[in-house]
Amino acid sequence: MQTRPRHHYLKGIASAVFQAAVRAVAPETCIRRHLSRSKNRLKAGDTEYSLDQIDHLYVVGAGKASAAMARAVEAILEDRIKNGVILTKYGHGVPLKHCKVIEAGHPVPDENGVRGTQSLLDLVSGAGPEDLILCLISGGGSALSPAPAEGISLADKQKTTRLLLECGATIHEINTLRKHLSRIKGGRLCTAANGARIISLILSDVVGDDLDIIASGITAPDPSRFKDCFDILARYSLTGKIPDSVREHLTKGRDGKAAETPKPGDSLFERVQNRIVGSLSDALAAAEAEARRKGYPPLVLSSMIQGEAKEVAKVLCGIAREVQRSGKPASAPVCLLSGGETTVTVRGDGLGGRNMELALSAGISLAGASGMLLLSAGTDGNDGPTDAAGAFADGSTISRAAASNRSAPEYLTRNDSYHFFEQLEDLFITGPTRTNVMDLQILLVDG
Amino acid sequence: MQTRPRHHYLKGIASAVFQAAVRAVAPETCIRRHLSRSKNRLKAGDTEYSLDQIDHLYVVGAGKASAAMARAVEAILEDRIKNGVILTKYGHGVPLKHCKVIEAGHPVPDENGVRGTQSLLDLVSGAGPEDLILCLISGGGSALSPAPAEGISLADKQKTTRLLLECGATIHEINTLRKHLSRIKGGRLCTAANGARIISLILSDVVGDDLDIIASGITAPDPSRFKDCFDILARYSLTGKIPDSVREHLTKGRDGKAAETPKPGDSLFERVQNRIVGSLSDALAAAEAEARRKGYPPLVLSSMIQGEAKEVAKVLCGIAREVQRSGKPASAPVCLLSGGETTVTVRGDGLGGRNMELALSAGISLAGASGMLLLSAGTDGNDGPTDAAGAFADGSTISRAAASNRSAPEYLTRNDSYHFFEQLEDLFITGPTRTNVMDLQILLVDG
Repeated sequence: MQTRPRHHYLKGIASAVFQAAVRAVAPETCIRRHLSRSKNRLKAGDTEYSLDQIDHLYVVGAGKASAAMARAVEAILEDRIKNGVILTKYGHGVPLKHCKVIEAGHPVPDENGVRGTQSLLDLVSGAGPEDLILCLISGGGSALSPAPAEGISLADKQKTTRLLLECGATIHEINTLRKHLSRIKGGRLCTAANGARIISLILSDVVGDDLDIIASGITAPDPSRFKDCFDILARYSLTGKIPDSVREHLTKGRDGKAAETPKPGDSLFERVQNRIVGSLSDALAAAEAEARRKGYPPLVLSSMIQGEAKEVAKVLCGIAREVQRSGKPASAPVCLLSGGETTVTVRGDGLGGRNMELALSAGISLAGASGMLLLSAGTDGNDGPTDAAGAFADGSTISRAAASNRSAPEYLTRNDSYHFFEQLEDLFITGPTRTNVMDLQILLVDG
Repeated sequence: MQTRPRHHYLKGIASAVFQAAVRAVAPETCIRRHLSRSKNRLKAGDTEYSLDQIDHLYVVGAGKASAAMARAVEAILEDRIKNGVILTKYGHGVPLKHCKVIEAGHPVPDENGVRGTQSLLDLVSGAGPEDLILCLISGGGSALSPAPAEGISLADKQKTTRLLLECGATIHEINTLRKHLSRIKGGRLCTAANGARIISLILSDVVGDDLDIIASGITAPDPSRFKDCFDILARYSLTGKIPDSVREHLTKGRDGKAAETPKPGDSLFERVQNRIVGSLSDALAAAEAEARRKGYPPLVLSSMIQGEAKEVAKVLCGIAREVQRSGKPASAPVCLLSGGETTVTVRGDGLGGRNMELALSAGISLAGASGMLLLSAGTDGNDGPTDAAGAFADGSTISRAAASNRSAPEYLTRNDSYHFFEQLEDLFITGPTRTNVMDLQILLVDG
């Protein structure tokens, strides 16, 4: 088991690696990396636009980081922005000069969201082929832009989503429904824009960065169809359980009496550019660089880690132990990096989040080991309903807890990882980072 | 999704890698790698013995592969073996010339095991300081060598183990109890041997190859104590639930009225050599070589993979997808190798095993992907209560099943992986391999 100074030293390195990763995906940084202007030329990624050929320039957006993204856009294009509407979560607004910021409910959508989304759609509907719409999408954008299809109440739409969630439907399946019950999702924002050019700058918070998943694909082509919705409902025996208004709308769609979402290949998208401006991969690249600077050559395992948090921890620790045992898959010292979005099947009544739960399980896996430390934390600085971003675990975690008569397996069973780490002073607290590219695991292994 | 010929091609490569791994840990191969003889010199690992200085040479053993190990020993030392007793599972015996083979119950011990263990202990008790005992240990050795301490019935000992298992006690905790309720485990075989030299050749079937875990450490020093047993029972609130005979024996031990297991540092062990002759690491090394020959440079992730099988699959597939996405942690083509022992929390009433369950979950994770194929299989050729060793999964698994109206998530919920893969003709059937170094995952990723 490692000594206390080593424990603190490794915590410091892991923190530095995490902070470097988060800095790389700050909304302003992401926007500046992908959007620049030189006089009357606007460069978005590798595409250039002449501002002279743009009639009106609008800025819209939805997501927890979208107000901060808009601020960076304003700094670049201030004088040219005609108007804008940004939907963000309560407490996530920042003062903007040319865009209206509307704060709304997240993760549960509310009427502020409904009204804000209508304002956003009204603005977009006023655009035309000579205009350019900059769309700033980030995590939470789906809940923050509720626009139920005609005849469906927000409550009925939410009930449908809840039923699907409870049945264990995948995010793809849920989004297929969402897109077909919405006036903005599944590329419908583009449909509404009357042929305006659209540049969508996207901060991804989903595993794999699929454009049609992030914020339910507001500006992305949608390969799914109304009839798929019925297949999904049948799969989970929900056809009879969803609200009548939802079933009626889906039936109209299936029978060709409600408009389909725009499909891949639709000429509409010739004027739409979807661009991921920040993602977990960017964060990992920065983490790699910082780990290397700190003397821990990095090995990225995956940016697409999914699964039950406590089980994921076992696999990661199994890999770390192999490093010490045989020098595989990399020789020590090494910083094993991974990220994604794990899940927690809640069975207890404790306080925690998926990162702290992962760390607690890692503590059990690493018990007694020396020279290994894991930090798992949310890049938004927020893990579950707590003030912590995540937690640290190492070979001393379990024995230090045992010394004050606390059993790690019991805390894990109760899903009470927050209180477990709080008493050990191994919570990782950053405050809100104002960005979100999911979670990061940093696993340092000494030589 | 890959084409059928590619599917079959990758299956062939994965099979070849698996077979090479298993060949490397065949009992005979392991014995020959670590035991050799040149005239009157016996070499065990890097230690040499003069056969002239050995009075009697005995061979004992317990485990599913121990009879096959003894056959290899007989081929080397035939004329010098005085006597031997080998405990193995029903159907796992082989004809031996100088050793008595006793088949017994596994995984549930039975009276044949009790009688056989007594024969083994009688033989060992007849040895003395001038004698050499070769002890051949392999997976299953614990259940195959039941020797309850005086006053405890086999049924009472089994009940204690079962109570611990049901509470989710770790293998370390269960073994601490086992060792303190046994006349052979926890190094007690060495105590019984009257100072005879002992060479223990061990085929490891436990994660991490801990000597005091494999077959409950028949010939290994035991760091645990009677008082630890009470801590463990208290931890799971079992102190009042275990049979009276067990509690009485543990109380006697705690009060110094029953002998402790021999501890690390005990001079007894100066004459004992414990040697791992075959392990998952050996199998992985052979798998690496074969993968390289087949054009898939290997990357060993870990030989210490644990966790819920379906969650482990998600992590492994997350790593494979990252290979295709970013060339990390290794560039394609690559053969990701891992192994260990996963678990399955059974909730359904289907037929399957942990490897097939892992493969089924991998099928879901890989759905639609091309150029990736996973084989997960038990190196003993046996996964769960089935005739299969494991199963193959790739990007076509789910859609091929869907084509005949079978839903992978439903089969997974029912823990019915065997029937799922049987219909797809993607079971991996090898027959018994006569060895066991846990499970192997072979994950091929095309460039």
